[in-house]
Parts: sequence; structure tokens; C-alpha cells
Amino acid sequence: MLIVKKFGGTSVGDKERIFNVARRIAEDYKKGHELVVVLSAMGKQTDILIQMAKDINPNPSKRELDMLLTTGEQVSVALMAMALDVLGVPAISLNAFQVAMHTTSVYGNARLKRIDTDRIRNELQNRRVVLVTGFQGVNKFEDYTTLGRGGSDTTAVALAAALHADMCEIYTDVDGVYSADPRIVKNAIKLNEITYDEMLELASLGAGVLHNRSVEMAKKYGVQLVVRSSMNENEGTIVKEAVNMEKMLVSGVAADKNAARIAVIGLEDQPGVAFKLFHHLARHNINVDIILQSIGRDGTKDISFTVKEDDLDEAVATIERHRESIKYQKLDIEKGVAKVSIVGAGMMSNAGVAAKMFEALYDVGVNIKMISTSEIRVTVLIDESQVEKAMNAVHDKFFPTQMN
Amino acid sequence: MLIVKKFGGTSVGDKERIFNVARRIAEDYKKGHELVVVLSAMGKQTDILIQMAKDINPNPSKRELDMLLTTGEQVSVALMAMALDVLGVPAISLNAFQVAMHTTSVYGNARLKRIDTDRIRNELQNRRVVLVTGFQGVNKFEDYTTLGRGGSDTTAVALAAALHADMCEIYTDVDGVYSADPRIVKNAIKLNEITYDEMLELASLGAGVLHNRSVEMAKKYGVQLVVRSSMNENEGTIVKEAVNMEKMLVSGVAADKNAARIAVIGLEDQPGVAFKLFHHLARHNINVDIILQSIGRDGTKDISFTVKEDDLDEAVATIERHRESIKYQKLDIEKGVAKVSIVGAGMMSNAGVAAKMFEALYDVGVNIKMISTSEIRVTVLIDESQVEKAMNAVHDKFFPTQMN
Repeated sequence: MLIVKKFGGTSVGDKERIFNVARRIAEDYKKGHELVVVLSAMGKQTDILIQMAKDINPNPSKRELDMLLTTGEQVSVALMAMALDVLGVPAISLNAFQVAMHTTSVYGNARLKRIDTDRIRNELQNRRVVLVTGFQGVNKFEDYTTLGRGGSDTTAVALAAALHADMCEIYTDVDGVYSADPRIVKNAIKLNEITYDEMLELASLGAGVLHNRSVEMAKKYGVQLVVRSSMNENEGTIVKEAVNMEKMLVSGVAADKNAARIAVIGLEDQPGVAFKLFHHLARHNINVDIILQSIGRDGTKDISFTVKEDDLDEAVATIERHRESIKYQKLDIEKGVAKVSIVGAGMMSNAGVAAKMFEALYDVGVNIKMISTSEIRVTVLIDESQVEKAMNAVHDKFFPTQMN
Repeated sequence: MLIVKKFGGTSVGDKERIFNVARRIAEDYKKGHELVVVLSAMGKQTDILIQMAKDINPNPSKRELDMLLTTGEQVSVALMAMALDVLGVPAISLNAFQVAMHTTSVYGNARLKRIDTDRIRNELQNRRVVLVTGFQGVNKFEDYTTLGRGGSDTTAVALAAALHADMCEIYTDVDGVYSADPRIVKNAIKLNEITYDEMLELASLGAGVLHNRSVEMAKKYGVQLVVRSSMNENEGTIVKEAVNMEKMLVSGVAADKNAARIAVIGLEDQPGVAFKLFHHLARHNINVDIILQSIGRDGTKDISFTVKEDDLDEAVATIERHRESIKYQKLDIEKGVAKVSIVGAGMMSNAGVAAKMFEALYDVGVNIKMISTSEIRVTVLIDESQVEKAMNAVHDKFFPTQMN
């Protein structure tokens, strides 16, 4: 099998961890697999380099910052090659120039465009483990670029797609994808399988094991992803297109506490009102989430929506600045709210899933402030203080306690 | 003017020093010069990286070691670009791939073969300062290589040659090239000019401001070198082909304490004896210096020569191992000896220079053990304990105390 593996910065943070990863690679190599391994910079090295840059120049050029940061992964792959050599496994490290990983021009947040696979294929044919720097690329000016948040995951998935790999394993510090955050929901279970779409909904809801970009790319190119722990041999979670027929209705419960609600009250009941309101917010890069429109008094209407709590002040200031064009009577804001969601591909063909969630919340006395649904997701806005109670109740409803 | 400047690791060791260098570059930039600046890795970074490698693998692959080490200069050039930006000077950093600097294949000790100058010329035309990583290149496999000791000086001289630069300035922690080591000879004076050949003799004798490879390359391509301090604005020493007519006979006095003498006594007086002896030593990479052959007793002959004191044990072991083929009566070795040399292009056309040196040594009671001469150099082997006295005496003979 041709397997692409990706290890994050924590997994290669020091000598001992480097050898832990090297031993894992050596095991698979000795089974006869062809291995391409993507590594991040060691531990906090990227943060350290950013701090060095800011110390010199508080607002460093993004081009030069990428030139600086790309050294981090190069150190990781070179040291890993040396560690594999100690274990008797032939390996070769390659940076973005050597692969080459072609990206768009944007420094600091480039997109991968094309990957040359000749060099990697040659090295694999020579029975070498190929170690590739994650997070980085080269643009048309022959300059280094970086891929932004979750960049190394994206590198791994893109390599798996370009090489038509049999599998792309993403190693993290957890055993896989869980039905809910185990720190909040005591009965949370590790999922064996999940679809790309479910994973995308969960990632955007703050489950945060994989970055959306890498999941989107895996879905687009049909790359079979496996999320598993670098600390143990457990099987992890497979992320793929279709899952078993006997699949659960709901694959996960997620919460997002970074939320606030804004109600714009007493808007004129005319076409274009909603457009004006959200146009102004979009121009300030404020992402709006659940939107609810209702009839108000005296022929007016009200629009409520949620934003990230971090964006609340700017959202309010933006709306007030455009009061004359938007035309409303007053604003009502609410902090201390949170979103709780259930996600599951099974919902599409099953009525009553939302109702089952609402029932679970009613049973424990949680009041629902707003509701939003997609084909594979139901989200409710509730009081932040009730998140834990709500998540456990909803989770237990869909995942009846298993025999242990 | 198009000027190539090279700053070593100490000159960019921390934020303050980086800005010192940046201010120097900014001054020359504002005078309208075109600037290409070669930087080494910060401070002891190369040593730190080597230690990291050895900690993982006591005998790391040279290919992977180069992959690791080349990150050092990349950090330096990126940070310098950020510092210049703070000073309002547009700059761009380039690594060996981006330039590109083509070298031979040998990892750890590659030779520069060819430098592409298109990218650098384009950036200079856009009025940018071009910051280039020293010490590194790319070989035909598209792998990083490093240039070995003195590598960044070589990078600078090679760039000056390829770009037909008007000058190549090598910044160090001393004011330039001195007539003798100021720590030993109190009347040592800074030279304003020196020829390539004199510089080569001085460098090989341990004056050590510039590595021989860079001086040889400067001579070959007629690059005008300037050695000057990064700490002050003093003019430094110009290294070039011909110097002023009124030039001094002798440009410098140098000493090398890393010497030992071996006498091979009682060799057969036949052809091929010297060949056999030095052939065995050469096969063990032992460099032999002053060689003296004399008639011994009973129709035999003796050959004396000096080696580096570090190589003494291996040289003796090598000779003893081949005793049967070399055929000699006994070995006599002497440690605690040193070479003192005078160097000067003026010697060639001036008889009596060597005699003047011997006179100076006689005046202070220094016994000469061996003598070796080239067209521009006279070297004597003396007792190590007398080096200081000898150097001062010889120096004062050729550089009568100046009015201060």
C-alpha cells in the first residue's frame, strides 16, 4: 500500500518523540508499504520564529515571514531522516522546492495548485521513506509560501490525492473523532467511521480535529482519511464518502460557546432590508450564523442572528453606523449564549431527528432560543450555562449507554 | 556601484547586531549603490543544529545534515529583510534554490559551479537590496549542499565574480589585515593594500582572516576584495592583483604554532626513497610542510619535515607501519616547535630579505631549526617558546616603528 502519514508539531517535539514516530514509520516500512510522511515544525518552533520576526519588525512582510517559517519543517524532516537512518530505514527529506509543491501567490495563506510527483515516485521506487515538509509551497515567483491554518493536514491530503495513495493517516493526540467532546460528555464514544460531510459540519462546529480545508480536499479527490493517535496503536476513525448502512442517525454532538445573538427590531417590511443589513456586515468580514426573521408589531419585522462573540462589538458598531440606511427601531443583544448541534448523514432520510433532540432538551429543562437546520445538522441556540447539561442529554438520547 | 557585502554569524547574532548591519546597508543603499548582501547563520546556530543532529544520530548522513544546516542562513536573510523594511529599505531574501547557486554533488564540502544571476539582477533593477544565504548551494539532484569552511566568504566572492561587482566587502571583527597578529606583535600595523598571493600565503600561515578558497577565487576572477570591520567605519584592507610601486618589501609576519618536526634518519641513498615516504603520508591525508634532505653517515641520507602537531601521532604510526618498504634506521620527533614566516610580493625582486630576517632572529638569540622559502615567503622553524620574541624582532626589522 502507498500510505501518506502526517504528524503534527507535538509528535516531533523532541528527540524521544521523533524516535517514537520513527519507530512507527519503521514498522510500516518493514511491512512493505510505500510511505510518504508529512511533518510539521517541531513543537512550538513556528510560534518561536513568529516571535523572532515580530521582535525585529512588528508588521513583517508576509513574503519574508514565509521565508522564515518554512525553515521549521525543514529541520523536522532532516532530523527524522537521521532518526530513521539509526533504525536502519532508508529515508530522504524533501522541501517544497524539491517536491515541488506549487501554490497560488498569496503569502501566508496560499492554496495548493499542483504537486510534481516525479521525485517522490523515484525515491519510493528506491525503497526510501519520503519525508515532506508540511505547510509550505512555492509560488510562480519561485518564493516560499505557507498554507495557513491546518496547512500540514492539507499538504498530506493533497499528496495522497496526487499520488493516488491508498490511505492518508492524520496522527493527532486523540484516538480519533468522538461523538462529542469527551471532556464535556462523559459517555462520548469514539467513532469508527464518519462521512466527509459530517466531518465538515463537526469541524466548523469546533470539534477541531481536522481543518475544513483538508476534509474538503479529501472529499473532492476521494482520499480515504484516517484520524488516529500517535501515542497508541488504536484504529482511529475513518473519514470517507459512504459509511455502513447500519449507520447511526447521528454521528456527533458538538458545542460552540463563542456565540452572541443580535436582534434588529422594527425593520421596515420591504424588499432589500435583509440584503442591506447583511451586506454591511459582510463588508466588515463578520460571519453571520443562524438567521431568524419574524413579523414584528405595526407592520415592521425583526431579524435575529448569531455572530461569534469576538465579533459582537464590531457587528453592533457596524449596524449602528448604517442606522440611516438600514432603518430600524432598536438593537437587542445577548451574550452568554452557545450553539449545540447534532450532525449525521442519517438525518437526511429520517424524519423526527430534530424532534428527538428537542425532546432531550425539554426533558432536562433547557430553553431553545433559536433553531437552524441543514440536511445533516440541527443546531440550537441555548444559554451558555446549560451547555454541559444539554450536550449530555442530547448525546445520551442518540447514543444509549453502551455495555462496557 | 554594485557591491557585494558579506557579514558573518557574529555580525547577525542578535536583534541589536542585525539592526547595526541593517543601518550600514541602508547608508550605502541611500548613496545609490546596488547591494547584494551575503549572510551566515546567526551566532552559533550552525553549531546548535549540528549538535541537534548528533544527538539524534552520531553519524548523520551528510545529505540530511546539509538539509538541516541550510535553514540557518535562511533565518538570517529573512530577519534581515524585515529589519531593512523597518528602516525603509526595500529588500528581498533569496536562498540557494531561488538564486540559484549550482554546486558539485558532494554534500558538506561542495564547490560552486555556476550562479544564475537573472533573479538577482531583476531584484536589483527594482531597487531592492538582495539578501543571499551564504554557505549553501544546490546540486544536480536538486538537493541542498554546503560549501565547507569559509563557505560564506566563497559565496560572496563567487557572487561578485558572477555579477561583475565593483567590490566585494568581507566584514569581520577586526579592522582588516595586519602586518602581524596584534595580540603578539605590539607594533603590528593595519595594511591598506595586499596582493592576492600575499593574502594566500598569510591565510595558509594562520593569519586566518579570509579562507584560502575565497582568496583563490577572487584572484582567478579579479574580484577586488575589501576586508573591514563591521564594528566601525575604518577603511579596511584592499586585496587585489597589483599594489602600489612604493610597496613595502614585506607585508606581514605570521606564526603557526601547530607544528611538529619528524626526522627520518638513515634512509638508503637511492631514487624513490622520498617518493615512498611521502606517498604513504599523502594516502593518510597528512599534509607535509617544510622538507629538508641532508646527507647522513655511511652513505645514508636523512629527511626532516614538519607536519601539523595534530597529525604527528598518525604520521609516526604511518611511517612505522611501512618501515619495511621505506627502510630507515630511526625516527626522531620534536614537538614544541613553531613556524614564523615573512610574506611579501616585494621579495621577488629584492635580494637580502631572507638575510635581514635571519639577522633579526640572530639579534635576539633565536635559533633556526629549518628554513623554507617561496618566491614571496620565507619560513623558519624555531622553538615554540621563542615565537613572541621572534615575531616582534622580525616585525620591527621590516616595519620600523612609525610616528604615532
